[in-house]
Parts: sequence; C-alpha cells; structure tokens
Amino acid sequence: MKVLVVNVNTTQSMTEAIAARARQAAAPGTEIEALTPHFGPASVEGNMESYLSAVAVMDRVLAYDGPYDAVIQAGFGEHGREGLQELLDVPVVDITEAAAHLAMLIGRTYSVITTLDRAVPQIEDRLALAGLLGRCASVRASGLPVLELEQNPDRAVKEIAEQAVRAVRDDRAEVIVLGCGGMAGLEEAVRERAGVPVLDGTAAAVKLAESLTGLGLSTSKIRTYAPPRPKPMTAWPLGAQLGLWHPREARTRS
Amino acid sequence: MKVLVVNVNTTQSMTEAIAARARQAAAPGTEIEALTPHFGPASVEGNMESYLSAVAVMDRVLAYDGPYDAVIQAGFGEHGREGLQELLDVPVVDITEAAAHLAMLIGRTYSVITTLDRAVPQIEDRLALAGLLGRCASVRASGLPVLELEQNPDRAVKEIAEQAVRAVRDDRAEVIVLGCGGMAGLEEAVRERAGVPVLDGTAAAVKLAESLTGLGLSTSKIRTYAPPRPKPMTAWPLGAQLGLWHPREARTRS
Amino acid sequence: MKVLVVNVNTTQSMTEAIAARARQAAAPGTEIEALTPHFGPASVEGNMESYLSAVAVMDRVLAYDGPYDAVIQAGFGEHGREGLQELLDVPVVDITEAAAHLAMLIGRTYSVITTLDRAVPQIEDRLALAGLLGRCASVRASGLPVLELEQNPDRAVKEIAEQAVRAVRDDRAEVIVLGCGGMAGLEEAVRERAGVPVLDGTAAAVKLAESLTGLGLSTSKIRTYAPPRPKPMTAWPLGAQLGLWHPREARTRS
Amino acid sequence: MKVLVVNVNTTQSMTEAIAARARQAAAPGTEIEALTPHFGPASVEGNMESYLSAVAVMDRVLAYDGPYDAVIQAGFGEHGREGLQELLDVPVVDITEAAAHLAMLIGRTYSVITTLDRAVPQIEDRLALAGLLGRCASVRASGLPVLELEQNPDRAVKEIAEQAVRAVRDDRAEVIVLGCGGMAGLEEAVRERAGVPVLDGTAAAVKLAESLTGLGLSTSKIRTYAPPRPKPMTAWPLGAQLGLWHPREARTRS
Amino acid sequence: MKVLVVNVNTTQSMTEAIAARARQAAAPGTEIEALTPHFGPASVEGNMESYLSAVAVMDRVLAYDGPYDAVIQAGFGEHGREGLQELLDVPVVDITEAAAHLAMLIGRTYSVITTLDRAVPQIEDRLALAGLLGRCASVRASGLPVLELEQNPDRAVKEIAEQAVRAVRDDRAEVIVLGCGGMAGLEEAVRERAGVPVLDGTAAAVKLAESLTGLGLSTSKIRTYAPPRPKPMTAWPLGAQLGLWHPREARTRS
Amino acid sequence: MKVLVVNVNTTQSMTEAIAARARQAAAPGTEIEALTPHFGPASVEGNMESYLSAVAVMDRVLAYDGPYDAVIQAGFGEHGREGLQELLDVPVVDITEAAAHLAMLIGRTYSVITTLDRAVPQIEDRLALAGLLGRCASVRASGLPVLELEQNPDRAVKEIAEQAVRAVRDDRAEVIVLGCGGMAGLEEAVRERAGVPVLDGTAAAVKLAESLTGLGLSTSKIRTYAPPRPKPMTAWPLGAQLGLWHPREARTRS
Repeated sequence: MKVLVVNVNTTQSMTEAIAARARQAAAPGTEIEALTPHFGPASVEGNMESYLSAVAVMDRVLAYDGPYDAVIQAGFGEHGREGLQELLDVPVVDITEAAAHLAMLIGRTYSVITTLDRAVPQIEDRLALAGLLGRCASVRASGLPVLELEQNPDRAVKEIAEQAVRAVRDDRAEVIVLGCGGMAGLEEAVRERAGVPVLDGTAAAVKLAESLTGLGLSTSKIRTYAPPRPKPMTAWPLGAQLGLWHPREARTRS
Repeated sequence: MKVLVVNVNTTQSMTEAIAARARQAAAPGTEIEALTPHFGPASVEGNMESYLSAVAVMDRVLAYDGPYDAVIQAGFGEHGREGLQELLDVPVVDITEAAAHLAMLIGRTYSVITTLDRAVPQIEDRLALAGLLGRCASVRASGLPVLELEQNPDRAVKEIAEQAVRAVRDDRAEVIVLGCGGMAGLEEAVRERAGVPVLDGTAAAVKLAESLTGLGLSTSKIRTYAPPRPKPMTAWPLGAQLGLWHPREARTRS
Repeated sequence: MKVLVVNVNTTQSMTEAIAARARQAAAPGTEIEALTPHFGPASVEGNMESYLSAVAVMDRVLAYDGPYDAVIQAGFGEHGREGLQELLDVPVVDITEAAAHLAMLIGRTYSVITTLDRAVPQIEDRLALAGLLGRCASVRASGLPVLELEQNPDRAVKEIAEQAVRAVRDDRAEVIVLGCGGMAGLEEAVRERAGVPVLDGTAAAVKLAESLTGLGLSTSKIRTYAPPRPKPMTAWPLGAQLGLWHPREARTRS
Repeated sequence: MKVLVVNVNTTQSMTEAIAARARQAAAPGTEIEALTPHFGPASVEGNMESYLSAVAVMDRVLAYDGPYDAVIQAGFGEHGREGLQELLDVPVVDITEAAAHLAMLIGRTYSVITTLDRAVPQIEDRLALAGLLGRCASVRASGLPVLELEQNPDRAVKEIAEQAVRAVRDDRAEVIVLGCGGMAGLEEAVRERAGVPVLDGTAAAVKLAESLTGLGLSTSKIRTYAPPRPKPMTAWPLGAQLGLWHPREARTRS
Repeated sequence: MKVLVVNVNTTQSMTEAIAARARQAAAPGTEIEALTPHFGPASVEGNMESYLSAVAVMDRVLAYDGPYDAVIQAGFGEHGREGLQELLDVPVVDITEAAAHLAMLIGRTYSVITTLDRAVPQIEDRLALAGLLGRCASVRASGLPVLELEQNPDRAVKEIAEQAVRAVRDDRAEVIVLGCGGMAGLEEAVRERAGVPVLDGTAAAVKLAESLTGLGLSTSKIRTYAPPRPKPMTAWPLGAQLGLWHPREARTRS
Repeated sequence: MKVLVVNVNTTQSMTEAIAARARQAAAPGTEIEALTPHFGPASVEGNMESYLSAVAVMDRVLAYDGPYDAVIQAGFGEHGREGLQELLDVPVVDITEAAAHLAMLIGRTYSVITTLDRAVPQIEDRLALAGLLGRCASVRASGLPVLELEQNPDRAVKEIAEQAVRAVRDDRAEVIVLGCGGMAGLEEAVRERAGVPVLDGTAAAVKLAESLTGLGLSTSKIRTYAPPRPKPMTAWPLGAQLGLWHPREARTRS
C-alpha cells in the first residue's frame, strides 16, 4: 500500500524529517510518499496560516498524480482534515488525532507538548472537535518556534522534556504526545527524561492508516464527509491556477 | 463608522441581499460596505468549500483599500473567523456567533434552521468552539441548498418554518436562528408561523459590531489571536498572486 | 429609546455611578433612567441578599410609572433576571451575561474579577445557567467588599488589576470582565495593567439592550419566560404593601 | 429532633398535605412542624413567583419562635435553598435535591414528572446547579397546575402515571420522582402503573434531614454559605415590616 | 432492620473498625452485621485487586445465611456495586457514593482525601459513573497505604489533615470526605484541622440505607440492575467451589 | 508477534468465532492465540457476570504458559481491562474501545448495536470511562441474547441491521460498531443494509495491538496502571486454587 504523508508547511527539510519518521514506523509493504505543499507558510503557527495551509494541503493532494491508499495530514493541531475527507475516498488520518487515539490506549491521560503558547488553544480545539479532549491532561508549550526545532535539537529535547516532566507531575499525564510534526524522532530522548511512554503523531498516523486500510475501511460518506456538491468554483485548485502545477497531473479519483 | 460585511461565496446577488439586510439593521452613522471574495465557491456547503472560503475571505479583506472599523464574516457555520482576528486590529464578528449571542438573551434555548443536512455538523462544531452550544436546542436542516433560497423564496419560507415549528415543539426551542446568510429577510415570515422570535445572523452581527466599536473594544491580542509571526509565505495573498487584485490596493493596517 | 437601569442594592451613590457609566455607553437617542430599589440590602454579597434583591428589583420596576423600552439589571452574578423576563414585554439584560457575551466576541476566554471570595460560586452558577461558563477561564475575588470600591478607588484598581494579571498569566484569560456593578469606570486603569481588553457589565448591557431594541427583538414568551399565571398573591407588590410606593404609580403594561 | 417543613406557597391545605407526608416518613422521635409563608403566591409556577417565595420562606423561618434541628424547603425546583443555608446553622434540605439523591441510589437514571411545562426548565436548572442533572433522564410535565392536584387526585394520578410510563419507555428512566410538593401521597398509585420505584421529595428530605442530624453534620460555612455580612437592610424581614408577624417572635440563633 | 456491612478486603481488624463506625452511626433498631470476604486481597489498592474484591464481596453476601434489609459495600472507590444490585432485592449502598451524596447536601463542593496516588483515578471514575463528580473539587492522596492507616493513626491524621487543608484552600472544597473505609473514626480530628465538615463513607451509608429502608424503597429492576439471566456458570459461587463456605449456607432470596 | 485474544465467556464456539475474525484481521506475522476462561458464565449479560468474567479473564491470562506480545479482551462493554493493564507489561486492548477509536477516524459519529437492552448502560459507561462517549451517537439493543447470535445468524443480521438503519437515520450515526464479540463476521451483511462503514471490535483490536507493538509502545506504569503492590492474597489466582489449572504453568512475567 502507498500512503501520502503531506507536510502542512513549505519547508522541505521538515517534509524529509517527517517522511523519515513515517518510513521508520511503516510496516513492510507500506510505501511512504511525502509531499510538500506548493504554496503557503514556511511554518504553521496560528489560525491564519493554518487555514491557508489547509487549502494548500488539499491542493497538493489534488496535484498528486498516481494511486495511493491513504493520506496523512502531518501538521499538529491544524485545520483541514474534514476537507480532505470530503475530497477523497481513501482514509485520511490527522497526526493530532492519531497520537491521541494511541495515547488513550496506553494511559488514562495524556499531555501534548507543543511549540509556541499561541498553538495551545488551536490544539485544544482540534482535540475537542475530534471528541478526544476528555482524557487530555494538558496541552503545554515548550516556547520553541517550529523552525527552531530542527536548528537546535538539543535545546528542543531539553525544553520539551522539561514540560513533559511537569505534565506528568502537575497535570497527572500518563503519556506524552509530541505536539508538532517537526518533533518526530525526539521520542526516546523525551521518554528517558519523563519516565512515561512518548508518542509521535506521524508514526501513530502511519499505523492507523495501515489499520484502516488493512480492514478495508474508509471514510463514511453519508453526511459530514459527503463529496463536495458540483458547483461553479473560481480559481480552484489554486495551485493549478497559480501555475504551480498542471491540471493534467490531477488524480482522476478526486 | 464603516463595517465591512464579507460574503463567503462568490455569488454577487447573495452579497447584495446580505448588504441590504445589514443596512436595514445598521444604526444611523453606520456605513455598510459589502464585499464578495475574488475566488472560491459559488456557495459554501461543506468543509472543503468552507476552508477555501475562509482563505478567500481573508484575501478579500486584505485586498480592501480603505479604512474600516469592523468586519463581519457573513457565512453561517463557516471556518475562518479566527484567521481574520489574527490579521486585523478591528473587531471581527461571525454571523453564526452573533445570532447565538442575541438569541440567548431573549430565550432560554434556540434552534438553528439551516440549508442542507450536511451543514448541520459544521454549525454544531462552530457553536461548540465558540462556547455557545450549551443553550442550542437543535440545528435542523430545511433541505434547501443555499442557492435555491433566493430562487424560490416561498418554498424557502415554507420549509424553514416547518422545521422551526418542529424545533419549538419537539426540541423545546424558544428562539429561532436563520442558519444561512442567504436567509436574511425571512425573519418576519418565519416568526409568524413559529410563534417565537426569529433572528438573522447578519443583522445581529451589525448590532454587535456597533456595540464593540461603540465601547472602544477590539480583539485581545495576547495569545490566540496574536498577529501572524513574520515568515516566508509562498503565494500569499492568493488573490494578488492570481492577478485578481493588485497588492498596492492592500490596506496598510493589516 | 429609554432604558431602565436598576441597581440591585439601596445605595444611592452606587446607582449614580452605574447611571453615569450607562450614559457614557449609550448611543445618541438612548435615554438612561437609573432606579434604586425601595427596599433590600445596602450591598448584595451572598444568596440571601441576592434573593431579596431579586424581589426588590422586580418591585422597583413595577413601581416605575412611565414607558420604557428595555430593562438592565445592574448587579453582577445576582438572582432575578428570569423573574423580570416573565413580568415584562421589553428586553431584559443582566450585566453579568452582557459582559460575558461581548467578552467572548473579542477573546477566546475571559476571567471575571469580583469583590469577595463568597461571590465567586454565585457568579459561576449564573454564568453556567446562562450557558456562558464554557469560555470562562476563572472567576477571581479581589477581596474588596462592594461598598469599599467607591470609598477606596485606588486600592480597588490595585487589587483588581493584580487579580487580572494573574488571570491572564495563570488562567489563560484573554479578556477581563469587571465583576461588580460598582466597578464601572475602572476599565481603563485595569486594562493598562493587565494588557488585555477590560469590560464593564453595565456598559455592555446598554449596548445589548440597544441591539435588541434596534432589531425589534424581545423575550420569547413561549415557555420559560411566559407571563405569571393569574392567581391570589399575598402582599405583592411588596413595596406598595409596605407603603414605599403607591400602587397608582404602577405601569399598566406589567 | 424537630424538623421545620416549609411550604413554598400560601395554600394552607397544601401545607397540611406536605406535613402529613413528612410525618409518615419521619422516624420515631422526629417531630414535624409545618409552616406556611406569611406572604407570596398561592402556588409557585414560574421564576417571578419562585423568587418571591424564596424570600417568603426565609422570612417565615425567621418568624418561627422556637428551637429546631433541620429545615426542609418543600417546593420542587424552587429558588431559595442557598439563602436559607446562609441564614441558618442547622441543615437545610431542598425536596428537589433530596429526591434526586435517593433516586440515584436505587436506579441508574431517574425522571421527574412535574406540573406545567413552564416548570421544566426551572427544575432542570436547579438540578444542574446541585450537580444532580447527569443521571436525570428527563423532566416531563403532566400539564396539571399545582392547585388542581388536590382538587382532582384521580386525574392527577392518571396524567402523572402516563408521563411516568413514557419516561421509563422512551427516556430510559429507572426511577420516577414526583416533581411537586403537592404530589405527596401519590407514590403508590404511580408505581403500580409505571413499574419502577417512585419517590416523593418531602419524604426523601425528611430522611436526609434525619441522616445529617444523626451524624452531627450541618452546612459548611467556609465560603458559599457563610452567614450574611452585617449591613444596613431596608424593610427586612419583610413579614415583620408588613405587620404579618412580630419581630419579638424571631429566633435568636438566626 | 439488619444491615450487612461488607468489608472489601480480608483484613479482619479493618472489618471490625468499619463495624464499629457503622454501629456508632446506626439508629436505634438498626443492627449491623459486618462481613469479611472469604478470599481476595488483604487491602484493595488498584483495579486488579478491586475487581477480585468485587467478586469476593458478591460471594460473601451470597454465603450469608439469614435475613437482612440492606447491604453496604464498605470500600472506597471500588468496583462491584452494580453486581450486588443485580443479585439482591434489598437496597445496596456504596460508601463512596453515600459520602458524596451527603457532602453535596452540606456544601457546594467536596474533596476526597484517599490513601495512595494510584487510587485517585479509580475514585474519580466511580464518582463519574455515579453522576457525582460535578461537585467534586478534587481527589487527593495522603500517600498512606491502606494497612498503615490503623498501624499509625497519628501519622494518618496528620497526612490526611494536611491534604484536607490544601483541598479547602487550593481546590475550594467546602466539605471533606474520608476516602478509605479504614479512615472511619478520624472525622473529628480532621475537621478540627481543616475547619470544614468531614464525612466518613460508612457512617453516611448506614444513614442512607436506613433512609431507603424507612421509605420502603429498593433498587429498580427494570433495566440496568435486572437479576442475572439464568445460564450455565462454571465455579460460581467461587467461595463455595473453593470450599471456603458451604452452599447450604446460602440465603434463599439471592 | 503473538497476540492473546481472550474471550470473556466460557462458550468455546464463541472463542473460535472470535479467533477466526482475529486471524482474518491479522497482518502476516501476527499469530493469534485464542483463550477461553477456566470459569465464569457461558455468556456475559450484566454487571454481576461481567465482574466475574473480568476476574476469570485475568486468571486465564495468568494461566497462559508462554510468551506473547499483546492481549485483547474480547468482550464488548465488559469490566476488567484496567486490571489486565496492571498485571501485564504488554499492551492490552479492549474491543469496545478499539472499535470506537477506529470508528472515530472514519466518521464524525458512530453508533453501537448490541445484544440486550440491559447491556446498553454498561457499554455507555465503559465508553464514558475511556473518554470515547462524546462522538457516540447512540447505543442500541437488537434484543438478541449473546448465545442466540450464533444459533440464528440470519435473524441476527436482520435485527442488527434494522437498528443500524435507525441509528443512521434517527441518531445521525455515520459509522456502525457491532456491539458484541459474537457478532464478528456480520460486518458486510450489516454494511450492505445500513449504507455506512461497519466495524467489528475484535478486528479493530488486532490492528491496534499490532500498531502499538509495531511502535514499541506499551501501557504507562506511572500511576493508574502500576503493577499491584505485593501483599497477602487469599485464593489467588482463583483458577489455580480451584484446580482448573496448575500454578507451574503460570508465566514468569506476570
């Protein structure tokens, strides 16, 4: 099976890091294809950027020319998953939700350690909408901007681990979720310091995409995620209109 | 004061209907400027379209060249309000929330009557995120697509009123909210049949925008709605990149 | 239009302060008539006093001889709003709810800074019943009794601002609501120290009363707020029975 | 021990019926003293009347000249219990809450069958504030006004039982609570028809008052129910000011 | 009436302490019969032990040969109450719930002080399932294992009181509940230090069992607590199969 | 990897059906070992039986002599998962939760169709404790006892599908979960009739066990699921005491 893992920002090095983590998690026979949006912000840290990214991710998937069996939206706490579910027939897994689902299986509560303080409310909202906030002990910010994570991995581990320790001690978290796609690969270092299981969303999403595909399951189309109704659309898909990709590349199925 | 009322779809006649309702609600001295997005769907009926519309609305406001004191997002249950709040210093009022706020002041519960069944979950989610779902008795669908509302106003009143009557009787609603920007102007006809107060979101939003401006209040910038951080952005604003408007038109303040 | 602003206690100087704030907030053409109950406590700080005050406020409105278009109950977190809604045909706005409604439009969360610790549960209960507690970050007490607010405004600002700062920092509040009718006028001083928008309930209530009246909306009479059923009542209205006002003064409409 | 059972309305025959039920429930050694307010409505069916009744009940207890060990507020879903708790050192038990507490011990869910439809929201609110709404399957109205209950007991049983049957079948209630003080004595007739245990609030309150007294427990005075602060009060207690009772009768302890 | 009070562990001295507290709380005419399970753990501190204990308690009640009027499960936060309710026709009262019910009658909020940190989630879950968590301010651990409570009563009081003080100050608790059957008898010492009413679950359960029996009420059998359906069972009752008691001892009614 | 799939009842044919479904879902390389408890009820339909089953399942796993990598508890809505998590170091997956997790990934809401009406509350409780009830549209009963499912598969499909259709239409479910281990294999037949994806818990649990194992994750031992503390235990493990298995068979790791 082939899984598209779509980064939510335009930073190629981050796409590569996410792809590496996805490949590490993948079962034999699972092929990972990592995509970077054709437009949008270099990192997503706020609602305005997240809405733009949601559209850029949908656009990027439409631009992908070839078959695939599942799509992973690899941005933590970002808008857009519902749109992909409407557009596609294959399963769509958001890394925020994937991490929360697996965390709830191995601990009574979990905490998310994310980047900036401003990301906290957005993550809480996404978890709430997915029905996964009840067992979330806290969402904490490490204070590190997204792009600094890869520039300074030592500091990243230090700051994330510090918040993880507080989450376990003060918020009674039993599992830690790394709250940014760019934190993939830091699990072991954080686990050592926090003393509880640590989860990365991309890895979790790969396993859940494999699970759904393995059981022959995909998105219910009965109501919320029914395909868009046919209607006039101006300048869509945006990337094609902008000349960033060519419509003939578009997949037939979407 | 000047209020920008931004339609969420590209249908000009709907922009005009919304503008007319807004002007009717406006106090003397409130100027209404109605805007239509430069791109996006002809009507918004689902998440994929709503995410695209969210971006198109932000783009449209950035394209507006001139001063203004408040912005109204005139789509019911749509994504995007948080992005506008980050981009702008003036108050931003979403018509979904505006209607719910006023409804809660005049009844213990309210019901929303919207267009298609598929819109129901999205409206519930937006009300939940805004903290306004607790007193919502139900969100009901009339079965009418957005664009049919203006083509067939008699049928619209009939179908909407039928659901309103059921909401009052079966769901114990005490106030009815019209759940689509395109229903503006149907209040009186529905009120006569349902026997309870009926609210239109655009009208409510105009009064709340006037209220906030009148008290010198605007969006808190301390955390969730802080301005976007400066960073590389590809192809933003989209409308300008697409040649739909010219960057020199952009407002300085945003 | 004329708005009755009813203080909940018998302290005339507080009625005047509230009236001043209401007039400052009022649009041109909005006349403010401030009323003091004919009986009850000098300040309301607890349930026993609040229940008595609820009755005294209803009694005071019944005693008012003349037309009016809306009524504001100017006590923070007090009982009684539902009773007024049953008695009257015009909109009734409680300052607690008014402040919360506007706060939710300009921030994701708000905190209330009130007077004594004992007032906190009552405010939480009133917000919960109104369906407005979900986005309330905290209700904090400044430790100042109601009547000390006007005797010692400098200390009031200092204590309120200190709690406001903590609410923003520790409870993640994005907007501050002044939790006592007697705090009207302190907004600017608290805002300077807390760094977030600050709202006074009386001012908010004036704008919402104007909004409802401007849209021709009033309380739904279908169920919860239906008029009292005709029946024998002993000693009602109490103020008239006590000789504090004369029944012939009573408004015909109530 | 002596328990004051205070009717919330001025209808003497209803006080007597409540007293009879209380005496039937009382353990040997428990003396029941039933009181009727000195003023207020003949029946309580709505918020305005309920607020007035709350004050009349407090006034009536203050007028009582003699020792007592607990107070029962015998109105279903009415305001006022918190005020009594502030005024008194002895336990105060509200019949609404008492019934819910015992119902939750003998079934997973319970439904309340009350009088008029307009009483439903008020009962829901009181249960919510008491933290007892989570296991309430429904509050249903029989359509019978309070005073008709004793005039037409056969019809009362028929209408109440019909709603009880629906609550068990449609709302999945496992216990029925009689939702009006005036329904005392109908338990057996309703139980026969509904096939589940049926509870009367007055009886439940007597047992809970005995329980608290038996364990030497009374209201916590640390915060919410602290005694009223000393301050000027106009025309309080109202009944004394109205000449309905004489201040020299007042208990020293309150 | 006779009440069976069943300890959840096999420690005889703890059964005796619980029995003593139950007898102290019992009304004249209430006979207390205290039972110790025939098998299971010496103390219950975790889910595995609690599930085993749940079965051992049911087994012990089945082994009891003689009439009784109510059963009390005297373990705090333990599994099993629903099973007893299915097996028996008489009322079943769990001490966790009993304490919470009475606590809610005398304060707006309560906190539980239990033994080990690991017991906290289990207690929260049991309160949540019983619909009693809403007014629970916190569940705090004293750090003392169950069996140390009786070995070191002075230290027990010190540690429990310390957490009680924090619960009142930091969590805004107004009542303290002793969160272990083995804490019976420490109420007064903790109350002196914490300054708020303190409740023991066993005592509370005795009064509630008396209340239900006094009103002729028992478990609703309509759905959740219907008797087990007749079917093949291997090795049940376990204690009889293990030769720990003889089937001829079993009560006819169960 | 080897996964133990433990049936919750003693009916061997049901163990085999569950094993077959598990093997069908398993990835290449996943070995399924299906176990039947040594004691307990022939089917689990209520709390008393479920508590007994919880203990029998723990006992059965302890009796298993050999290595394994994960344990699946194959009973829908049953007690006991937390106990297994304390006893074991490998991941434990409950089929109720597994089905809900996957259902939430492919639809906004899901409904469970179970056997008897009396099972409904227990399933709701288990989902609530797992933090998975928020997106559950309903739990419906087909009216079929557990053991009749395999005796009458045609009727089973008919009754289950009928409730599934109602769940989709009336409760707005977008995914159906089969609410009994014994329904494994009916997915396709129900899906055809209901028109939405249908999930079996055993299959879902196999994929989630593979997911956790594949990522090297297991239960957090920091608090709720810490191993039982060493202490005297009477007659544990029960099966060994009963001579149903021999202690020397017990795994060293547990």
